[in-house]
Amino acid sequence: MRALVFNDAYSVAVEEVPDPEIVAATDAIVRVVATCVCGSDLWYYRGETPKAAGSRIGHEFIGVVEAIGTDVGQVRVGDFVVAPFKYSDNTCVHCVAGITTSCVHGGFWGSKGVDGGQGEFVRVPLADGTLVVVPGGRPDDALIPHLLALTDVYGTGFHAARGASVVPGSTVAVVGDGAVGLSGVLAAKRLGAERIIALSRNPERQALATRFGATDLVAVRGADAVEAVLELTGGIGADATLECVGTAESFTTAFAIARPGSRVGFVGMPHGVEFPLNIAFGNNVGLGGGIAPVRAVMPELLTEVLDGVIEPGLVFDLEVAFEDLPEGYAAMDERRAVKAMARLS
Amino acid sequence: MRALVFNDAYSVAVEEVPDPEIVAATDAIVRVVATCVCGSDLWYYRGETPKAAGSRIGHEFIGVVEAIGTDVGQVRVGDFVVAPFKYSDNTCVHCVAGITTSCVHGGFWGSKGVDGGQGEFVRVPLADGTLVVVPGGRPDDALIPHLLALTDVYGTGFHAARGASVVPGSTVAVVGDGAVGLSGVLAAKRLGAERIIALSRNPERQALATRFGATDLVAVRGADAVEAVLELTGGIGADATLECVGTAESFTTAFAIARPGSRVGFVGMPHGVEFPLNIAFGNNVGLGGGIAPVRAVMPELLTEVLDGVIEPGLVFDLEVAFEDLPEGYAAMDERRAVKAMARLS
Repeated sequence: MRALVFNDAYSVAVEEVPDPEIVAATDAIVRVVATCVCGSDLWYYRGETPKAAGSRIGHEFIGVVEAIGTDVGQVRVGDFVVAPFKYSDNTCVHCVAGITTSCVHGGFWGSKGVDGGQGEFVRVPLADGTLVVVPGGRPDDALIPHLLALTDVYGTGFHAARGASVVPGSTVAVVGDGAVGLSGVLAAKRLGAERIIALSRNPERQALATRFGATDLVAVRGADAVEAVLELTGGIGADATLECVGTAESFTTAFAIARPGSRVGFVGMPHGVEFPLNIAFGNNVGLGGGIAPVRAVMPELLTEVLDGVIEPGLVFDLEVAFEDLPEGYAAMDERRAVKAMARLS
Repeated sequence: MRALVFNDAYSVAVEEVPDPEIVAATDAIVRVVATCVCGSDLWYYRGETPKAAGSRIGHEFIGVVEAIGTDVGQVRVGDFVVAPFKYSDNTCVHCVAGITTSCVHGGFWGSKGVDGGQGEFVRVPLADGTLVVVPGGRPDDALIPHLLALTDVYGTGFHAARGASVVPGSTVAVVGDGAVGLSGVLAAKRLGAERIIALSRNPERQALATRFGATDLVAVRGADAVEAVLELTGGIGADATLECVGTAESFTTAFAIARPGSRVGFVGMPHGVEFPLNIAFGNNVGLGGGIAPVRAVMPELLTEVLDGVIEPGLVFDLEVAFEDLPEGYAAMDERRAVKAMARLS
């Protein structure tokens, strides 16, 4: 089969690799229907996070179950499934508590001995716990991007909103207009936010933020953004703040615009952040979130997609052929695209 | 009148200072009955935080109202009152939301133009908002330490427990066996914790922790403490963790023993902490707390003291005469005492 392979910084390619086989009785083999590129894939792509040459990459995919191990009971051959960006057993103490990313038996796609998500087929460990079946079989093509967004980006934006304790009536601020930030706007809207202030300087992203529910746009950064948000909120700050960038500046902005006693939800792996602990202390601004346990909320979010309540796949602004996935990486790296996807079958 | 004056690092003295007078119509003058020394007073004492020579110090006091301004209506002359460690109007948007420490008109005792709490009298700004009246007049002498503990230390321990989201049935870990950590043990017990693991190597503090409700004692630090807590919790970690030290090591320990998806409550002004954001991210461990808005919870905690439900004043293990307050500082600085108090009238 063909799969994307990481060879070196700025060098990924679709190559021929061995077909996956059932290894454990709890495995399933999924034929990938669609996959996409994550902002976190770019850390490897840019050489910022080390990755072995020749290793597999990608962690977002949806598809059809082709084979199952003898211990798989919840998932059947032919099921159309959504996979979360980490596999997990859904039965351990942390999974039961909803923190599937801390599953004691779970792990990352593309790690040693585990397929990446950007390939024609994926061996899925702990298939019963990991995969979520889409009822009714293969959905309309138009739904594919929205289902694909549930594998990571929308669930991650949703986790940011939950981590920030968005409740009905909240005034929410979202720092970051990437795919996660835009997803956070949509999630905040779904959680009942009355007012959503999106920080964005890009007209296309502003337009999508508005479509997703943003009521106010702040087109400046840093201290100017802090001033603008405080002015918009009568000097009080946001009731809930989503930090969807992960840099020192974005963290400082997020904590500075957060209302005293509120929380900042963060979901991106921070890089080089000097955490503003003094603002957190002085203003009683808490921190929530972390790596998003999207598996735990996937059934609920899946229902909203199937019912047409949300269209989280609107964050995909570039679709490429599978063999052109390297162009998807390049376009995202060069900020020509928010998020790229590919359909395979 | 006499008041403690900060002259230089390791040099505080009880000196003659001008009697306070009503300045604003919202002021009250309180005759101090008891005051005490806070761990945070030691930052000035040790010269770690700059403070002007000749300035007043101390922020914990209880006493009797001697005079009131013409706009004071909630507090009357003769009332026995407890003061929180910051003054606040109790009517602004942040006070109404329970974050009295962020009061838009509030401030710190001992700041420019404001009396310190370690003196015979204190001019109290915004008296109606700041002071909490003890019903029934002057209480028995035996209650004085417990009421004094409400000005800061117990409310702060309580805020750590709330910040960590302690709920009935929780397994709680408390990092730090100073007066705040011990108060956190008591608060966790009051909030319904089923199991309380106290990290302490000091026999006297272990004894008080146990009296306050600790069910398990961990007498090691750092990586050994992490291992011990994980072993005590079946590898899961604590449902709620109180960080009551404020150093890099204590923060790392707190986040490492926190169960995935749980929260660390912190209440001490951190000094030189490299915040363990990667653990927070990977384990979805949130942060709650900050400078404790003790005024907001004071009525509820006061009732528990008056009803004899809690005895938070047990954290005082040294009582000195008012003129000997400098010895209280020295004893705490040299770790000969957990917390020192003085009675004045």
